[in-house]
Parts: sequence; C-alpha cells; structure tokens
Amino acid sequence: MKAIELLADIAGVGRDVARGGYSRHLFDAGELELRDWFTEQAMRRDLTVRTDRNANIWAWWGSPGPGAVVTGSHLDSVPGGGAFDGPLGVTSALAAVDILRDKGFRPAKPLAILVFAEEEGGRFGVPCLGSRLLTGALDADRARGLRDGAGITLAEAATKAGYEPERFGADPEALARIGCFVELHVEQGRGLIDLDSPLATGSSIIAHGRYRFSFAGQGNHAGATLIGDRHDPMLPAAAVVAAARTVAAATPDARATVGRLAPTPGGTNVIASTVDLWLDARVAGAGRTPALVAQIEAVAKEAAAQEGCTLTVTEESYTDDVVFDESLRRGMDRVLGGVPALPTGAGHDAGVLAAHVPSGMLYVRNPTGISHAPEEFAEAADIAAGAHGLALVLEELAR
Amino acid sequence: MKAIELLADIAGVGRDVARGGYSRHLFDAGELELRDWFTEQAMRRDLTVRTDRNANIWAWWGSPGPGAVVTGSHLDSVPGGGAFDGPLGVTSALAAVDILRDKGFRPAKPLAILVFAEEEGGRFGVPCLGSRLLTGALDADRARGLRDGAGITLAEAATKAGYEPERFGADPEALARIGCFVELHVEQGRGLIDLDSPLATGSSIIAHGRYRFSFAGQGNHAGATLIGDRHDPMLPAAAVVAAARTVAAATPDARATVGRLAPTPGGTNVIASTVDLWLDARVAGAGRTPALVAQIEAVAKEAAAQEGCTLTVTEESYTDDVVFDESLRRGMDRVLGGVPALPTGAGHDAGVLAAHVPSGMLYVRNPTGISHAPEEFAEAADIAAGAHGLALVLEELAR
Repeated sequence: MKAIELLADIAGVGRDVARGGYSRHLFDAGELELRDWFTEQAMRRDLTVRTDRNANIWAWWGSPGPGAVVTGSHLDSVPGGGAFDGPLGVTSALAAVDILRDKGFRPAKPLAILVFAEEEGGRFGVPCLGSRLLTGALDADRARGLRDGAGITLAEAATKAGYEPERFGADPEALARIGCFVELHVEQGRGLIDLDSPLATGSSIIAHGRYRFSFAGQGNHAGATLIGDRHDPMLPAAAVVAAARTVAAATPDARATVGRLAPTPGGTNVIASTVDLWLDARVAGAGRTPALVAQIEAVAKEAAAQEGCTLTVTEESYTDDVVFDESLRRGMDRVLGGVPALPTGAGHDAGVLAAHVPSGMLYVRNPTGISHAPEEFAEAADIAAGAHGLALVLEELAR
Repeated sequence: MKAIELLADIAGVGRDVARGGYSRHLFDAGELELRDWFTEQAMRRDLTVRTDRNANIWAWWGSPGPGAVVTGSHLDSVPGGGAFDGPLGVTSALAAVDILRDKGFRPAKPLAILVFAEEEGGRFGVPCLGSRLLTGALDADRARGLRDGAGITLAEAATKAGYEPERFGADPEALARIGCFVELHVEQGRGLIDLDSPLATGSSIIAHGRYRFSFAGQGNHAGATLIGDRHDPMLPAAAVVAAARTVAAATPDARATVGRLAPTPGGTNVIASTVDLWLDARVAGAGRTPALVAQIEAVAKEAAAQEGCTLTVTEESYTDDVVFDESLRRGMDRVLGGVPALPTGAGHDAGVLAAHVPSGMLYVRNPTGISHAPEEFAEAADIAAGAHGLALVLEELAR
C-alpha cells in the first residue's frame, strides 16, 4: 500500500470538531484506535508486533535482535493538529516495507517499525514521553505522576487502557536492539519550499524547554472589587506573554511561545484566583534556552510582585541541542542522490534517541510551511518520494 | 427551618473539586438537583410551584395574582463560586415564610418566592438570563442560540432538561403579577465590614457590559516558526489584559476584568490560531462603560494589526445604571430600624426587574469581602438577621 492510502485509512480517526484538525492524545479513544490500526497493518504484513514496557509499539521484520535498523515516528497529535505530523513517518515506514518486499529485498539485519507514545506531550505535558522513558531520560516515577488537564495521572490512564505503568522505565534491552534509527517526518517550516526540493535530511534540532508558570492571586467579584483591591493573576500572565515575544525577538534565532494559558475559575464576571501558562522556549546553543527563560522569569516575578500575586515556575522538560549522526546523514544523502540538509526548531523522538544510537531524519516538503495546525500538508508526489526514499535508505542500512 | 440549615442541606450539591467552591450552571446536574430541592422545600410549605416559560421557578403563598409581593434570587453560581451568592436569597426567602407562618401572619396580598434561571451567565454567557427573558430585555431567538463552552445551545440544553425553549420569551403576564420585588443577597464587597452593620439596603447598581474579543491569527509550530513569521493572537490578547487594567485605573470608579481567556487549540508547543477573551466592564454613568470599552478596543485593534491578526468584538450584554425604587428602599429601611444604603458594582435580577416594577435589595454582611470565590462567607448571626429582616419587610409589604 502507498503511504497516502494508509493516511486516508485513518483520516477519520480522532478528528477535533471544535478545534479543527486532529486531537489524538495518549490513551484517548482515537489514539487507542490508531494503535489497533497499526497493529493490524503490521500483522497483515507478517511483522511481529511487540509493545515495550513504555507503551511504544515495535513491528519486526525478522527476529527482534541487536543491530536492528529501526524506523518510525508517532501517531499522537497536538490538540487540533494536522494529519501528517507523526502519521506520515509511520505510514511511510509501512509503505517502505511494502516497496522493499515488492522488489524482493530480504534484510540481512533485523528491521523494525517503531511507534513512539505521546511524542507531542499533548495530554501529559512532556514531549517525547515514550522515547524519554525508554532511554531513561525521564524518571518513571515522575512520568507515572504526570497529570492531564482533567487531573488524571498517566499511571491511571495507562492502567485504564490496559497497560502496566508499574513497568514504565529505562529499557536498556530495547535500546540495545537499535543499531540505528531513522525518522521520516513532514517538514514543519518553509525550508524545502525555498529550496525547491521534496526531501531533506535532518542536520540538528535546537534546544527546547517547556516551563509552567503558575500565578496565584485572589479570586473575587469582577464588579464589586475595586481596581486597587485586586490581586489578579491575569495581569502578570499577560506580562509573560509580552515578555516572551520581546525577549525572543531580541535574541538571534530564539523562539518563545505561550500557546496554552488557563485561568481558574475562568468566569467572565470573576477575577481569576490562579492562572497557569506554559512557555515553550528554544534557542540553539548550550545554556542559551535557560538564559532566555531566566529573562522572561524576571519579568514575571516583577509583575507578580506588583500585583500581590505569587509565582511558581516549573521546568517540565528540557533537551539540549541535538546534532544528528553525520555518517548516517551522509549515507542517506548518498542513497537519495543529494538532498538539502536542514536544521529544525521542532523536537522529535529521533532527537532523544540521538544521545544513544546513530539517529537521523528525513523531511518531506510541506507546501504550506504550517505545522501543528490543520493547514499542515504534503503533496501526493512528495509523500511517494518520501516513502521511496525511506525504502532506499532502509535497504542500504539493512543489507 | 433556618436559612443556615437550608444552606447546609445543599452544601454538597454542585461542588467543583478542580476549582474549589461550587459550579452550578443552568441545566447541569447540580443545578437540576437544586431545582428539585427547591420545589420539594416549597411543596413542604404548601406553596404552589409553577415554572414559567423561561425556566424561572415561582413558589406561591396564596393564589398567583397581580400585586404580588415577590422575593427571591438564584441558585446557579459562577464557575468555582461561593455558597452564598444566590442561594442565600432563596434560603432566606424560605426561612422568612417559616418565620411569618410561625408568628401566624396571613398575607393580604399574594406572596411568591422566585428563583431566576442562570443569573451568573456562567454557562451561556448572558447574566440575568431568566429575568432578561421574562422582561423581554433579551430576544428569545438570540437566547435559544447562545452556546456553552462545549458548543451546546441553550435550546438544546433546555430540551434535554425537559424544558420547552420554543416558549422562551417576554412574559408580560408573569411580570404583571409582580407588585414589587425584593432580593436578599450576600454582600460582594467590604461595605458592611467597614460600616459594622449586618444588613444594608441597596441604592443602585453601576452599569455593566460583557464583551467578547475574538482574535484570529495563524496556528503553527512553536519551535519551527521564526518570530518574524508569526501571527500569534495571544499577543494582542495579552495587550487587552494590560489595557483593561490601565484604562480602568485611569477612570474613576471603573472596573475592567479579563477573567476568562481561551486559546485554541491550546497546546504548549503550538502557536494559537485563535484566542477568545471576555472583558467585563463597569463604570457608573450613562455611556461611560461603552466609552471605557472603546478605549480598550482601540488598543486591541492596534495590537491585532501589528501582529497580522484579525479582531471581532461582540457585546454579549449591557445594562445601564440601575437606581432602586427609593420609596421601597425607605420602607425597608424603616422596618429594619435604619440600616446603611449601599451602591454596588455587582449585577442582580432585581436590577433587571427595576426597569419594570418597584424593586429593592437587602445585603447581608460578608466578613471576607470576597465573592465569586470559595472564600465568600456570611456568619450565622448575620444570616439569621437577614432572614428575620426579610420576614419583617415581606410582612410590611404583604399586609
């Protein structure tokens, strides 16, 4: 099957009517349906399906074993996300297996498709949850205690879905099987539009941190409370939004975003008692992201104090810059006949694995340049080029 | 029964574990339970219960008819509200009937307890929904089409709860039965603390408007989108929060609040595609609230344009200043032996009725001065003083 046919097969799963696009989050109905769908697709191809202790799904061509050539991505989305971020990598991997089978290729090394759990952190806040757990980058106890917006812990949600959260944690055996990892992904910017190329290899990922700013003031009546008597946490929260922009704009190549902000209780005629907001910050270079956040935090502290509010800042995740394995990247480039190499501001499971095994990425052109939104797109011809390119890469690596 | 006992009877209904306090919104499980509870309490007292075409509940002592002395309040709350705002007026009305019965009083005029629907606008956005529909201040078609946060219309919610939304609309017959209306309410500020009095009459309510600001930008990836390429609606939204404070602080006796703000899709690693926020604005004096909002809107437009975002502002409700019936207020004051008269920044159904029938308010001291929050409170002695004061007022009016 072609990747585009596989994508069409899941086009109805996890649609978000309110936001547009898709909301497929770890262990929700849509995400569980996609897990079943992937398992069925893998079994149709006589791949051996194994779910590891961290709810990542592996589909093996050949016996599971060390030195494996592994490819894959994720099936979850951001809230209201596009159809390609994640699923393009998984469907292209399935399509690549079909292409290799059709040409009679038999891998000398074990080959596996790997579907990572909760890459976006859309439900429990920590991105690359499955790969961080597998590699030990995320403590299992901390992971089990992560809560979603409704207060449900990851442990509770996992148990309800039939998984065993008590088994979560570093999985050196699984990691030791990975000889190299290649993730195909839709591009999340305009690089390939400008370069007029359907494909690129990934060169690096800039550092990335997520920080929760929790302001507490005094909830009160919006009509009966005089301005001078207020301790309204919405004021310092707004100051953080403005500061994130100002500070990022003044720092070369920095990105700082507040995309999630939640006042409690959230009534129109109620001064909020607390406001939580999440700052997503990324600057290339060791220590530069924390330094950017420190500048924003200083503004937040000052604004909170001025309003008589308190502030707690929690780092929810942080990843240093990743440089992908240069030898793997050059090998892919050779097989693909020479394509651009792109750095990216977007995080990926391949970036987490890169600290442990040779890892690389293939990007497929996105004609809108937009991602994490319904406008995210890939043309049929580029999707086909991606799957065929991935097949060539896997063939070369697994021969 | 005492009002405090009746309050204790409903203390477990509609608790909001996530926000603290109570979330009792029109036609949700808690609010429906309170409707049943009130009906049962009224029937225990041999009152005749009638729900009008706008889902307001009337409990009649004597035959329903014109010239009636009507008292009451509401049972719904803001999200995460206190136990007293609304229910104190309803339970005090029931207690006052008991007090009058115990002393053998027989009203010469019809007397009714009236429970208004959705006074807070906590679910469908328009405050004093039941009284605005009854008086014709709110168009029935507009009301039926109001949507809650989940996109459910008022018409759908009403039908599901067993009400008939096709009957919503101005109810001149019901209005014509009201000879006068008295609403007892917990105070929502510090007036009675400073004046050292358990009770006050209400003199006026300052003008009040609610405005929805909808900013639309371009959702995108928080890591891969350069600062210069962004159209992030969170930026102009934050500018409105700041402007609301600045403009209100510069306008004597003005209040402006953003207590509700919702980015879509609301992901940490996603630049929002849209942000909706609600501005609650109140300044005494004809035309002064719209003028305040115009200043804030000018900032919003400028900030939206600067970010390449669009802005739509919708007035969800507006009420001019209300001056309560002075003759009714003096009468209540005489019966109560002289109590302070308080203006308020908080809106009430009595304020909506005031344009049609002589209306007045009794306030009960709130020792925290905080309202629309779990800290809202009234001491047992003050609650008793309120119910006894209300009984005296009703006795005088209905004799």
